[in-house]
Amino acid sequence: MNQEFELKSVIRSVPDFPKPGIMFRDITPLLANHEAFRETIRRFTEHFKDSKITKIMAAEARGFIFAAPLALELNASFIPVRKPNKLPFDTQAFHYELEYGTDTLEMHIDAVEEGDRVLLIDDLLATGGTIQACAKLAEQAGAVVAGCGFLIELDFLNGRRHLEGYDICSLINYGDENP
Amino acid sequence: MNQEFELKSVIRSVPDFPKPGIMFRDITPLLANHEAFRETIRRFTEHFKDSKITKIMAAEARGFIFAAPLALELNASFIPVRKPNKLPFDTQAFHYELEYGTDTLEMHIDAVEEGDRVLLIDDLLATGGTIQACAKLAEQAGAVVAGCGFLIELDFLNGRRHLEGYDICSLINYGDENP
Repeated sequence: MNQEFELKSVIRSVPDFPKPGIMFRDITPLLANHEAFRETIRRFTEHFKDSKITKIMAAEARGFIFAAPLALELNASFIPVRKPNKLPFDTQAFHYELEYGTDTLEMHIDAVEEGDRVLLIDDLLATGGTIQACAKLAEQAGAVVAGCGFLIELDFLNGRRHLEGYDICSLINYGDENP
Repeated sequence: MNQEFELKSVIRSVPDFPKPGIMFRDITPLLANHEAFRETIRRFTEHFKDSKITKIMAAEARGFIFAAPLALELNASFIPVRKPNKLPFDTQAFHYELEYGTDTLEMHIDAVEEGDRVLLIDDLLATGGTIQACAKLAEQAGAVVAGCGFLIELDFLNGRRHLEGYDICSLINYGDENP
C-alpha cells in the first residue's frame, strides 16, 4: 500500500446520522482493514516525524484509536483527554461553547508541561471545538502545539479557522456535505 | 526493556476514586512512558501471536488504547464496541446487569461474523461485566472468542468466573485492594 491508496474508499457514508440531514462519515470499515489502518498511521508518521513531538493528546473516544499507535511510532507519550469525572488524579479543565450549551474536557495536571511539543490527534475535524479545547489545555500547561492531525476534515465547516498558526495534517477531505 | 520490566511500577494508585474506599489503578503514567506502553503491546502480541486472531474487539474508551496498536501488530481488524447511539450503521446490542441498573453495549452488525476468531481487549478486568458483554456480542454473531487480554486484573473481584473456557492474559495483577 502506498500514497496512491485511496483512504476515502474505506469510509462509509451514512445519511441522517445522528440526525436528519447529516451525512455521517463512518470510519469503522477503515479500522476493520488493517492495511488501511496501518497506512493511516504511516501517513501521520511521515508528516510529523521531524516535528520533535514529545506528547500526543487525544480526546475520547475515537481520537484514542489513532493517537495510541502514533505515540508508539513517534516515541511520544500518549495523553488521554477526557470528559469530566473520568480521570482519577488532579485535573485541569477547559470549558467550551457548543451550538447549544457548553462542554468540558480534562487532562491530568502532570500530563503536559513547559517544553513539551504536543501533537493533537482526532478522527474528525468538523467545527473544531474539541481540538481547540485540546489546544487550550496544552497551552494553559505551557506546552507548544506542534501539530494537529485528522483522519477526516469536513472542509465546508471551516474548523481550520480555530487552528490558525498550527501545522495541520488531514488525510481525507470532504468538500461538501454530499459528495 | 524485557520480561523483567515491572509494568506495575508505572501504574499510579489513587485512593477513594471514583468513590470512598476504592483504590483506582491509574494507567496514565504507563501511557506517558512509550517504552512501557510498547512493552505492554509486545507482551500481548507474544501471548496471542499464534491464536489466529482475525478481529480485536474493545469497549470504549480505555480499551481502544490497547486494542488499536495490537490490531496493527496482529494484522487483525479493530472493532469498536460502543455505548448506545454512537455507531452510525445498523447495530446489534447486548444488555447486561450492573450492581445498580443495567447497561448496553453495541457493535455494527457487519463487524464480526461466523468464522472470526476474536480477541477481546480491555485495560481492566474487575467484576467482568464489560468483557462478558463483548464476548456475548461476538458469540451472538457466530464468532469464536479466541482470547481475552487485560493490562490489569483485580484478582479479588474474581471477574474470571464469567470467562470460563477462554484463554486469558493479564499483565498486572492486584491480589487485594491495597497492596
